[in-house]
Amino acid sequence: MRNRHAYLGPEGTFTEAALRALLPDADTEDLVPCAGVDAVFGAVRRGEAATGVVPLENSVEGGVPTTMAELINGEPLLITAEVAVPVEFTLFAREGVDAAGVKRVATHPHALAQCRRWLAANLPDAEAHTVSSTAAAAQAVAEPGAPYDAAICARIAGERYGLVPLASGIGDRADAATRFVQLSRPGPLPAPTGADRTSMVVFLADDHAGALAELLDQFAVRGVNLTRLESRPTGDGLGRYCFCLDADGHVADAALGEALMGLRRVCADVRFLGSYPRAADESADLTPFLPSRGASEADYQAAARWLEEIRSGRV
Amino acid sequence: MRNRHAYLGPEGTFTEAALRALLPDADTEDLVPCAGVDAVFGAVRRGEAATGVVPLENSVEGGVPTTMAELINGEPLLITAEVAVPVEFTLFAREGVDAAGVKRVATHPHALAQCRRWLAANLPDAEAHTVSSTAAAAQAVAEPGAPYDAAICARIAGERYGLVPLASGIGDRADAATRFVQLSRPGPLPAPTGADRTSMVVFLADDHAGALAELLDQFAVRGVNLTRLESRPTGDGLGRYCFCLDADGHVADAALGEALMGLRRVCADVRFLGSYPRAADESADLTPFLPSRGASEADYQAAARWLEEIRSGRV
Amino acid sequence: MRNRHAYLGPEGTFTEAALRALLPDADTEDLVPCAGVDAVFGAVRRGEAATGVVPLENSVEGGVPTTMAELINGEPLLITAEVAVPVEFTLFAREGVDAAGVKRVATHPHALAQCRRWLAANLPDAEAHTVSSTAAAAQAVAEPGAPYDAAICARIAGERYGLVPLASGIGDRADAATRFVQLSRPGPLPAPTGADRTSMVVFLADDHAGALAELLDQFAVRGVNLTRLESRPTGDGLGRYCFCLDADGHVADAALGEALMGLRRVCADVRFLGSYPRAADESADLTPFLPSRGASEADYQAAARWLEEIRSGRV
Amino acid sequence: MRNRHAYLGPEGTFTEAALRALLPDADTEDLVPCAGVDAVFGAVRRGEAATGVVPLENSVEGGVPTTMAELINGEPLLITAEVAVPVEFTLFAREGVDAAGVKRVATHPHALAQCRRWLAANLPDAEAHTVSSTAAAAQAVAEPGAPYDAAICARIAGERYGLVPLASGIGDRADAATRFVQLSRPGPLPAPTGADRTSMVVFLADDHAGALAELLDQFAVRGVNLTRLESRPTGDGLGRYCFCLDADGHVADAALGEALMGLRRVCADVRFLGSYPRAADESADLTPFLPSRGASEADYQAAARWLEEIRSGRV
Repeated sequence: MRNRHAYLGPEGTFTEAALRALLPDADTEDLVPCAGVDAVFGAVRRGEAATGVVPLENSVEGGVPTTMAELINGEPLLITAEVAVPVEFTLFAREGVDAAGVKRVATHPHALAQCRRWLAANLPDAEAHTVSSTAAAAQAVAEPGAPYDAAICARIAGERYGLVPLASGIGDRADAATRFVQLSRPGPLPAPTGADRTSMVVFLADDHAGALAELLDQFAVRGVNLTRLESRPTGDGLGRYCFCLDADGHVADAALGEALMGLRRVCADVRFLGSYPRAADESADLTPFLPSRGASEADYQAAARWLEEIRSGRV
Repeated sequence: MRNRHAYLGPEGTFTEAALRALLPDADTEDLVPCAGVDAVFGAVRRGEAATGVVPLENSVEGGVPTTMAELINGEPLLITAEVAVPVEFTLFAREGVDAAGVKRVATHPHALAQCRRWLAANLPDAEAHTVSSTAAAAQAVAEPGAPYDAAICARIAGERYGLVPLASGIGDRADAATRFVQLSRPGPLPAPTGADRTSMVVFLADDHAGALAELLDQFAVRGVNLTRLESRPTGDGLGRYCFCLDADGHVADAALGEALMGLRRVCADVRFLGSYPRAADESADLTPFLPSRGASEADYQAAARWLEEIRSGRV
Repeated sequence: MRNRHAYLGPEGTFTEAALRALLPDADTEDLVPCAGVDAVFGAVRRGEAATGVVPLENSVEGGVPTTMAELINGEPLLITAEVAVPVEFTLFAREGVDAAGVKRVATHPHALAQCRRWLAANLPDAEAHTVSSTAAAAQAVAEPGAPYDAAICARIAGERYGLVPLASGIGDRADAATRFVQLSRPGPLPAPTGADRTSMVVFLADDHAGALAELLDQFAVRGVNLTRLESRPTGDGLGRYCFCLDADGHVADAALGEALMGLRRVCADVRFLGSYPRAADESADLTPFLPSRGASEADYQAAARWLEEIRSGRV
Repeated sequence: MRNRHAYLGPEGTFTEAALRALLPDADTEDLVPCAGVDAVFGAVRRGEAATGVVPLENSVEGGVPTTMAELINGEPLLITAEVAVPVEFTLFAREGVDAAGVKRVATHPHALAQCRRWLAANLPDAEAHTVSSTAAAAQAVAEPGAPYDAAICARIAGERYGLVPLASGIGDRADAATRFVQLSRPGPLPAPTGADRTSMVVFLADDHAGALAELLDQFAVRGVNLTRLESRPTGDGLGRYCFCLDADGHVADAALGEALMGLRRVCADVRFLGSYPRAADESADLTPFLPSRGASEADYQAAARWLEEIRSGRV
């Protein structure tokens, strides 16, 4: 049971691809497809799976609302790993259906948004229907008497459900990618690797732009680099936001630890979401980590020793 | 034709309610329901409607992705008015169907997200299906041979399609609200009223947290109050964001004009979305406008006169 | 020998008054008048006196240059106490000289600057001569065949040297005060009292205004209140400054310690000058210590415990 | 009369050298030596001289107190030019006196401070006396029956008063320099040259470090580079400071004008001291003017045009 890993199913989702990238040696029988993002969170919380994998954000659509909502407001889980997966969309149909025969296309709303231009140009008359995942679309199309003629999904899904590819690379953005995270119940953190990321949710004490600037200062003054800042409504009315932040570094690092304590002191609430190895491929060129003057771990240790000397009266 | 007003249809949507709040005297025959948010933008852009009304953000789900995408990347339209509408969800079924008979519920994804808790508690076995709007759900349920037994929608929609209410106030948040905006083609701006709001999209020059702090400083230094900051992916890869901002004030005001020029100078791009009267009821208590020291229009005029004296050598 | 206390002499200076305020029980024979501020520093450095008292800043003239120079560049000494003394100037003459007979007035340059207006109004034709201290002026006037007719000095000095007061309260500012500090060789710091002050000198890494703003941020982010910021040339050419700072708090406090470590990391150099009890009377009403949100010692300890929980995987 | 130029005399001061550098073609008979800095200000204010030249700051001692006090609190004059003069000190004696015979040395307090080390090493037993200027010291030494044996002064002064040089280059800092400014009564400003400097005095609205950071932000946000920040006591008690600032740029520039208006709005008071051509030699390598992104005059003009388009409804 400890080896089971939940993911956003059904089989053939981009999330399954992400899980296999994170756990290349996992047995297929230990992978548990779930009917929704919240079902993945539930499986991990109840201990039915050791970990779960869910999409966190997409380079075109932004944060995945249900994932964000669970991380922000649900019973706490820790992010212990991340991976970024390129998103390549393919139009798959049942055997014997060609492009001219496609009247009803099923896919996930995010996928639909990302293929809007291709659909308008190539299947202007087709009706688009949204279902819970791109793999569910493939599964539905494969069923006898399906209400849809074709699905927009990952290659793995079309193949798994025995469909025929009609067109590939149909996303409006060739470089689209989705970032997935692996979740565990609270416990020991992944050890620092020297190239880590830390995620957190911050609720401002006062709901004004000045409070956001103060929040950013807590990082800037410690030389900690933010790699993501996403606002989300708190649900408490229009104009009320919290902020989901990712920063370079591990909570065990002096700089990030000090920044986190600073947030804790000046913000209404801070939820720590995890420190974990940074996915190498995507962050390297996007937001190169340029340590500010005096922001290295060695700088922090040297300053701490100097302060100790002063406090002890030896300087 | 100049009087026609497009909105996110079909008839019975919360958007129709918003449009009627904005234009209480409009003839019903001048109101044009459109099949999607992008269709509303298209109708206004092509001149088929003088204005269009779309949802901009929801207090639970955040920004409406298609509206945001059109405002950020589409052919420019101006926001000329706003209104906030409380969101109250009701479960409607066809005549003769009771709660026990509800197996398939249709609604809009946002509505589904906001009624998740009620559904889990009261209809744990019902399947949820998402359609393009809550009104479309009501319309679909009303059709003979409908694939759904009930719809979650606004009261106006259920009544318009002849359905029977099974339960009302089923949203997880009693105080949920959606903010709608009215769009026009570029042209003269609404005159300043003294209680205005200005919307804009800002693309940072350098993609780091420091750049965001600099952006906020452009407002803070001029004493301009931000009432909304929402990040959106630019679509150019993970970790790339633009920011949708609302600020108190009108672009004709000295303070806001100076801040906007500042953004223009230091940011990669700024898209002005409009200056329009602030919706009175919602902003008053949420983010009270407290003019900072020296931030009133009179302060700005006095400083400009003083500078003129200095430059002319009279001081 | 351990009980001897050097001060800026000769007998009768405001500095002697400050020393007696700091050490009301000291024997007069243990008080050692020195010929200049640098002589006081030298006496303490060589161990000829246990402590020394010098003027640090004046409310009219600003920092005392020699004191500043010794603290900034000289062999380090610790500030262990402070006191603020009101400055009241009196014009004293030799027995038998009246105001009409005063042709040459001696005093210290700072005193001269602070009595300029009175002199211009009352003794417009008198020549002003500057000597090393107001007490030295009194002493010189008292000498037979003195080159001066009158001295501007403290009452204590005029009386000690047997002079006659001609006019008192002749300073241009009735509320002028001088702040004196007591110096010791490096060693254990005075224990925190809950109402302390910490002094330091900071050399910016880059000589630009942005670097100064970063310096101020190091304090602001930790909620540490600065009570004094005085620029001094580094001596390395025009446009090169260092900054002498006083802050509320003791280096043993978490907030101040963290701020000091921050300065150490981002600045070219930081010289710690001491933590010592704040002089109660003058700071209370001038810069009331209003702890910022989350800046109390308890806030710091709570945040540290929270971080410990997170790092240990218990949150 | 319009051609007369007052300066801090007597003849032979570094100030005379500065004046001759600023006005190389002036007739000697038009140069009016004054007995003090305040006398120079007075001569210009009363119209007895068209302009006046005074020392403003020294690279070793910092701001010249009397000049600062007159600029901050006196009847306003405009700074219309500046020049930096290297300070080289020479020890001059009367004919027939050699180093061994020097018992009493006269000079200006700043010169004394800058030759302290040389005097301690070479004339440890000589008494130092301070007079109103280095040239006055030379003049005094040259008088029959002078109370001093030698003067520390500029070469020009020693030669003018017929003294004999005993040692030259005796300042502790070989690179010491003094910055002088030329003053005029209020009137038309010097035209912008593209390489200008603007001086001002700023009184903070609230006496705390946060207010200083806000002041710096007013410049930073507009991309205006500060080249000098010097605190001065306001005279209103310990802990009360105003700030003398120099910035790159001319008040006629859009960036500097906007920054100045910003200061005017948020500060208790701002005194404009003048815009004038920057002294080329000294500032070039010390604080290279690196225009920030979007801070050029062209950037400002482009942003103003863009705003005009938006306000007119054409964007």
